[in-house]
Amino acid sequence: MLKVPEHQVAGHIAKDGKLGPLVDDQGRFFKPLQGDARGENEAKFYESFSTNKNVPDHIHKYFPVYHGTQLVEASNGSGKLPHLVLEDVVSCYSNPSVMDVKIGSRTWYPDVSEEYFKKCIKKDRATTTVTLGFRVSGFKVFDHQESRFWRAEKKVVLSYKVNGARLALRKFVSSNSPSDDDDSPPNCAFASEVYGGSDGILAQLLELKAWFETQTFYHFNSCSILMVYENESILMKGGGDDEKKKKPVRAQVKLVDFAHVLDGNGVIDHNFLGGLCSFIKFIKDILQS
Amino acid sequence: MLKVPEHQVAGHIAKDGKLGPLVDDQGRFFKPLQGDARGENEAKFYESFSTNKNVPDHIHKYFPVYHGTQLVEASNGSGKLPHLVLEDVVSCYSNPSVMDVKIGSRTWYPDVSEEYFKKCIKKDRATTTVTLGFRVSGFKVFDHQESRFWRAEKKVVLSYKVNGARLALRKFVSSNSPSDDDDSPPNCAFASEVYGGSDGILAQLLELKAWFETQTFYHFNSCSILMVYENESILMKGGGDDEKKKKPVRAQVKLVDFAHVLDGNGVIDHNFLGGLCSFIKFIKDILQS
Repeated sequence: MLKVPEHQVAGHIAKDGKLGPLVDDQGRFFKPLQGDARGENEAKFYESFSTNKNVPDHIHKYFPVYHGTQLVEASNGSGKLPHLVLEDVVSCYSNPSVMDVKIGSRTWYPDVSEEYFKKCIKKDRATTTVTLGFRVSGFKVFDHQESRFWRAEKKVVLSYKVNGARLALRKFVSSNSPSDDDDSPPNCAFASEVYGGSDGILAQLLELKAWFETQTFYHFNSCSILMVYENESILMKGGGDDEKKKKPVRAQVKLVDFAHVLDGNGVIDHNFLGGLCSFIKFIKDILQS
Repeated sequence: MLKVPEHQVAGHIAKDGKLGPLVDDQGRFFKPLQGDARGENEAKFYESFSTNKNVPDHIHKYFPVYHGTQLVEASNGSGKLPHLVLEDVVSCYSNPSVMDVKIGSRTWYPDVSEEYFKKCIKKDRATTTVTLGFRVSGFKVFDHQESRFWRAEKKVVLSYKVNGARLALRKFVSSNSPSDDDDSPPNCAFASEVYGGSDGILAQLLELKAWFETQTFYHFNSCSILMVYENESILMKGGGDDEKKKKPVRAQVKLVDFAHVLDGNGVIDHNFLGGLCSFIKFIKDILQS
């Protein structure tokens, strides 16, 4: 029994008869192979990456597990279509707060068509991609005061300038009710537990950075970093309930969206690495403030 | 008595009645203030940087010393014009081998005119700027077999693809006669002394990289890394002449060309940093091969 993912914050959404990813109740994520070269390219990447012995284990864990491809009933009612079968990275969370950040100071790359180049660079210049080397693509935060999710509006997210992006990264780890108004500044209550610590987001990003400084296998064009954590469990801590206290925050970084990955051909992915370093500096600044 | 610099490998050259930099015999480099905003911007940068107490001393040494501005007789005969007075970074070398590498995966930046954007991105895509995050702008090598300098042709340098750039970085530290033919592969005889070692090029680049990971004062758009060394002195080593044996290689990295530097406004220079990391990887690869 496949259904529309509850916690997707960016990309094609399988609703209103559109084609989009689906999930099952076994922790699997079914992503339709896009009809053009992109679907083939993403499948090719997963095949290569999942069997690449030169990629160390501590790096493999930042990518969704790949279970091959499978024909399944598509979300748009067009019958059975090939889907990538991936790990559903949020399936083990009760109320995951999720943010999708597209990394890189450009989303185009050498040898694309002029049409694709123009489309990409226009969006790169209109968002923070050029200025920051990354752009927030979407996020949702579990609001435990109201016991429901708050989701950032796509239109608002895509209009962020430098300060908008900074504010979003603070909102993402705050316990006061999210809002689109600037008059209730985010309190960053979860920052030290989610972004900080030996197994927090920053530590994971630094591990990825070290790999990107040397790896020349892949260029991750137009690829995203997904950040996930369980903020409810933080609130339970110290509440006197031992069983609940054991629940970890499980802040997690995953790389997703590999439709535009190219061979590195002996050159590091300086576009991803530069953006990653900029993103890391933003996270560090929040931890220090 | 000002004269045309002997060891300039890129940028405007003061010959045939054109406006360009001049040097004196006291180790000073006179760079004419370009008429438009660029000259003002470069002077503004030097004023800011030379007095910026937040920039550590070990970073200041990677920039030419700034001695203010001065009216001097211009190289194009148009009378006295304002010039930046800078340290002539090659003045203390006998036969300096010099390479100019423009760092960054783009030379344009936010808020430039469409005309400037189009001019820059065309060149960025035609050179290795987009693919490598840097491009070689020019270089000369002292050829001690012939006891003269060999200078790479500008047209050839600007047509480099990935392998051309890699070859140039090998040629730059080789003792066999440079040539534009691929049939005499560079021997990289000086690589370990120039690129390697505790005070070599790589060590200096890594020190710069660490600073770029945190500094948010300046964005070094369209700025170059100049690499200089004395290769004659390497050959003297072990030659039995004690006085000459003491001559160091003095491999040196300097940042130059700040006409397009902008305020960082709290964001790291991910464009420069990404390109620098890519450049570092190329140098490491040569040292390892």
